[in-house]
Amino acid sequence: MEQIIKNTREKCPLVHCITNYVTVNDVANVILACGGSPIMTNEILEVREMQNICQALVINIGTLTERTIAAMIAAGKRANELGNPVVLDPVGAGATTLRTETVFKLLKEVKFSVIKGNISEIKTVALGAGETKGVDASTTDLVTEENLEEVLDFASSLSSRTGAIIAITGPIDVIATKDEAYVTYNGTKAMGKITGTGCMAAGVVAALVTANKGNELLATVKAISMMGLAGEIASNKALGTGTLHIGIIDAISNMTDEVLENGAQILKKR
Amino acid sequence: MEQIIKNTREKCPLVHCITNYVTVNDVANVILACGGSPIMTNEILEVREMQNICQALVINIGTLTERTIAAMIAAGKRANELGNPVVLDPVGAGATTLRTETVFKLLKEVKFSVIKGNISEIKTVALGAGETKGVDASTTDLVTEENLEEVLDFASSLSSRTGAIIAITGPIDVIATKDEAYVTYNGTKAMGKITGTGCMAAGVVAALVTANKGNELLATVKAISMMGLAGEIASNKALGTGTLHIGIIDAISNMTDEVLENGAQILKKR
Amino acid sequence: MEQIIKNTREKCPLVHCITNYVTVNDVANVILACGGSPIMTNEILEVREMQNICQALVINIGTLTERTIAAMIAAGKRANELGNPVVLDPVGAGATTLRTETVFKLLKEVKFSVIKGNISEIKTVALGAGETKGVDASTTDLVTEENLEEVLDFASSLSSRTGAIIAITGPIDVIATKDEAYVTYNGTKAMGKITGTGCMAAGVVAALVTANKGNELLATVKAISMMGLAGEIASNKALGTGTLHIGIIDAISNMTDEVLENGAQILKKR
Repeated sequence: MEQIIKNTREKCPLVHCITNYVTVNDVANVILACGGSPIMTNEILEVREMQNICQALVINIGTLTERTIAAMIAAGKRANELGNPVVLDPVGAGATTLRTETVFKLLKEVKFSVIKGNISEIKTVALGAGETKGVDASTTDLVTEENLEEVLDFASSLSSRTGAIIAITGPIDVIATKDEAYVTYNGTKAMGKITGTGCMAAGVVAALVTANKGNELLATVKAISMMGLAGEIASNKALGTGTLHIGIIDAISNMTDEVLENGAQILKKR
Repeated sequence: MEQIIKNTREKCPLVHCITNYVTVNDVANVILACGGSPIMTNEILEVREMQNICQALVINIGTLTERTIAAMIAAGKRANELGNPVVLDPVGAGATTLRTETVFKLLKEVKFSVIKGNISEIKTVALGAGETKGVDASTTDLVTEENLEEVLDFASSLSSRTGAIIAITGPIDVIATKDEAYVTYNGTKAMGKITGTGCMAAGVVAALVTANKGNELLATVKAISMMGLAGEIASNKALGTGTLHIGIIDAISNMTDEVLENGAQILKKR
Repeated sequence: MEQIIKNTREKCPLVHCITNYVTVNDVANVILACGGSPIMTNEILEVREMQNICQALVINIGTLTERTIAAMIAAGKRANELGNPVVLDPVGAGATTLRTETVFKLLKEVKFSVIKGNISEIKTVALGAGETKGVDASTTDLVTEENLEEVLDFASSLSSRTGAIIAITGPIDVIATKDEAYVTYNGTKAMGKITGTGCMAAGVVAALVTANKGNELLATVKAISMMGLAGEIASNKALGTGTLHIGIIDAISNMTDEVLENGAQILKKR
């Protein structure tokens, strides 16, 4: 069994996050809970220098502003120079012109290790990557067993074009490179009733990927599965969405490679 | 029994919030908990476009900045054009010139469906609305049974002048239009020892009002009562203010029209 | 026994915080939990006026921006004019040039009542205060029984130079003025796995110091010890880092001078 989580807790990668102010506290706490260490800053006067002492970068556009977009690009470029993995969470891409154009600009300026979003957001990313295949009306906004092969093709093609691992999250999660693909089935419907599970997932992906060089695809798969499993574990004790929220962080903080191995519902598809 | 909450869970209104960074996570989670769906952005480059895909707007001035004030006005005007309800939470109005002037500017530029605040904040709103009646020294900073009739007159008059439902929160809550008025008595003193219950209330008001077109006054009354009842329910299990905070979100997520009907302490006064 | 906490709950000091957006909600809630009342704003157009109605100021540079640095200085100067205590939390000082230079600028422009940070941050503060003594390679980045005397000298010297109470937090906390010094041993290792315990400590320090004029050193010692004790109490019930986080706020909200007296591990060293 791969020691993905153990490696993360031992190496404690420092993850710089430029993220939204809605869920930033949860992202910081979940990065700590999975074994990493978070630093948040979106000030352009220091983001490049902050990257120098960090091992990874998360760019989440959830509450982007003109000011922070510039910081995202500066930090991303510096991370690329240093060889630090960069995770993109294109929150709300497609919802407004600003978000869509920002994603397009980021794709042009920064090389990403992982791009994680729901199917709708990833379709917008694909447009920005010049991808047309698979982005048609027949690919609905939900990944199902029926359209799974089509989505796998789409994700692989987008990975090929961007060089990034593509993680499409939803009731069925698809994680793919150009050559390989996994699906994971963990998670509960109630998780959709708390804000930030997607943002937290991006933080966990960054920590696990950074601590598992050479094994990035599996680290991403485990990270996505782990967030879903944490939701399942938390659901058992939750009295509502407040305690579900807190329980997810508890579950991540207690997670081991063994617990994840037992609870993960992961299928290798390609 | 009116199905105010059921309607909200079924219609799941998308509520755009321009709110403070102190309690933004709670506001997002409570909107989800009561059946709505939150989107937070205060970037002027996208707020108008974001309104296009939303059904409501909350403007909370708790941590206003020069940048976000402009976004509030732009988003508010767009919401008015679209006929989306706009809820104003004038946090700290009267405490600084910037807050007071911002409220005055907002009243001039944006038409609100609901204005919710404590008696001190609502008095400042009244000044901005050109209201003088009832805003005198005899109206102290607490609504009591003794000054209730005077406060009802004041709220009705302010509603008449602004066209908004006026919700004055405190140990006794007053919710009034020019013709009708309710008081609600739910809530506990301990709720004053956690930040954000007022901000959360504004989010719940927006969700319930939006999902109950034609029944906005009752939706506001129920929203205010529901926050207080959630505090009462959470108090039973809380071990301190941390678990009280989380328990309130639990209670909102479990709330039904039946539970609210049984627990609500609402009196129709006019 | 000094009634440090009782005084705080009775006087309910209004604490203005210019703090980071990562842990701002926790800071607000912990100030309420220990008996104070928080107000957050970093808008330069209102910070001076806000100070007029407040009794204290916290400056935390955790997510400083060009805009908020100006507000920190303006608010700090106004607090000095009013005689309101100002607490500095130099988060990440030394990590980037911007943070270090901001700390230097703040030390020049604002007089602090308390400066609280880890040993690494306080070393950077010392550089800015023109201090050289004790800031050498032999003082490692952890306070231990072995280097304790050296750290006490360093803290006393820095206090003498700045006029501030110096609080160096870690497994062993050192709190010193130029004449007196205490160490406290409360806290648990798990507290390092949640974000914001340091930021919360600064908020508690501000509330307790403000409510205990003439007894500022002891108030600071108690505040630091109290945060650690709250972590110990919360650890007993915590199921992971999520419930630990919430449990700390519970424990602070239940804290009395008696509970603190019994649980505090405080030694007077000088």
